[in-house]
Amino acid sequence: LRKFTQTRGSGVMIFRQLFDRDSCTYTYLLADPDTKEAVLVDPVIELAERDAKLVDQMGLNLIYVMNTHMHADHITGTGLLKKLVPSCQSVISKESGAMADVHVEHGEVVKFGEQELEVRQTPGHTNGCVTYVCHGEKFALTGDALLVRGCGRTDFQEGSAETLYESVHSQILSLPDDFALYPAHDYVGHTVTSVAEEKEFNPRLTKSKEEFIDLMNNLGLAYPRKIDISLPANKVCGLYNLP
Amino acid sequence: LRKFTQTRGSGVMIFRQLFDRDSCTYTYLLADPDTKEAVLVDPVIELAERDAKLVDQMGLNLIYVMNTHMHADHITGTGLLKKLVPSCQSVISKESGAMADVHVEHGEVVKFGEQELEVRQTPGHTNGCVTYVCHGEKFALTGDALLVRGCGRTDFQEGSAETLYESVHSQILSLPDDFALYPAHDYVGHTVTSVAEEKEFNPRLTKSKEEFIDLMNNLGLAYPRKIDISLPANKVCGLYNLP
Ligand SMILES: [Fe+2]
Ligand SMILES: [Fe+2]
Repeated sequence: LRKFTQTRGSGVMIFRQLFDRDSCTYTYLLADPDTKEAVLVDPVIELAERDAKLVDQMGLNLIYVMNTHMHADHITGTGLLKKLVPSCQSVISKESGAMADVHVEHGEVVKFGEQELEVRQTPGHTNGCVTYVCHGEKFALTGDALLVRGCGRTDFQEGSAETLYESVHSQILSLPDDFALYPAHDYVGHTVTSVAEEKEFNPRLTKSKEEFIDLMNNLGLAYPRKIDISLPANKVCGLYNLP
Repeated sequence: LRKFTQTRGSGVMIFRQLFDRDSCTYTYLLADPDTKEAVLVDPVIELAERDAKLVDQMGLNLIYVMNTHMHADHITGTGLLKKLVPSCQSVISKESGAMADVHVEHGEVVKFGEQELEVRQTPGHTNGCVTYVCHGEKFALTGDALLVRGCGRTDFQEGSAETLYESVHSQILSLPDDFALYPAHDYVGHTVTSVAEEKEFNPRLTKSKEEFIDLMNNLGLAYPRKIDISLPANKVCGLYNLP
């Protein structure tokens, strides 16, 4: 009955969702209210100053700037944030092939104060995609592996529809029904979903694996507008050619 | 120490924030998890079908489609939602001058299941602006009275900088520090703020009343792009000239 209830566990973690209207990217600011240690996930370079200002106003100590994967549609704000907030370190998965201060692997836990994010490898959109799971507050940041009623494309950056299907089902939709799922993008204004909803209503992931692969391999999407500038930049935390 | 903690009280209410990228409007879907009674606040006509679909998928019973005020920047989805979900009723303040099934006044309470929203009159942006306060979950929907680090303009629709200043201070910033404040718009990707933050960092509302009035009366903003089509439509729930 309460499967669509939208909670965040204890509700104690500081949690802010931020949006980039141009690339439709969601950035997340998470922090421990006691120690003030904070992490930013998937920042966008054009909005890095907005993010740094919010961190500063909220009196937070930004320790990690993390990415769910090496993005092809925007330049990460990671490198610029490291300049704006020199104490922080960049974090990305080892498999991403991108440079970072800290490379994380499946099963590791990122800690900030009393808060914890479990790293789950969820390849398929890219080889190096991870989902950050917060068991304490009952949510996951799914990157482009799972979007609200959708999923990331699998036709570039070592994408594989079969791998994505397995990742989403084994690592994300296997979480409890009431876990909130926060995507890296949404194009129609949804901000969040839940495991229960996606298991029931995701038009792609509710298909059989064979149907999913067939669908994903025949989307006929346009070549990503910013991929040729984004990937080389995101390999080096977005600092490529930065003034 | 915990003043910026972002909680929603018991965390039991179903709560969804939705965004319109064109007008930068936030729409809110709130529901009682037990009775499934739901309300939508500030829907946008172009996205009414998205909203109706979400209501349907979540198994909710939409009883009210509410507006914080008569918007000048977009056509409300209220009328279209009444066609898509015939059981629901439209709600707006009596002072708005707009047609609706239910006219609310200062101090009234809107109920859906066990959930309650207190109506607080917060004129200044328009004559008929209200803020919906949820004491149980510790948040308020502020419409255009208070925006994240900003506020609605006061130079049309019977706007008054002095009235807005008094409304925001007496009805919104007087709430407890840890109340979350959800605006009707944001133009740089912020999704939420808190009473504590706005008391400390709102660049307009932290000024003296005299400075605020002077600032607001000299913004020199452009004539609102959609006001001439939005106001006549929103007077009649957005049904004006609807096919
Ligand atoms: Fe991506
Ligand atoms: Fe407005």
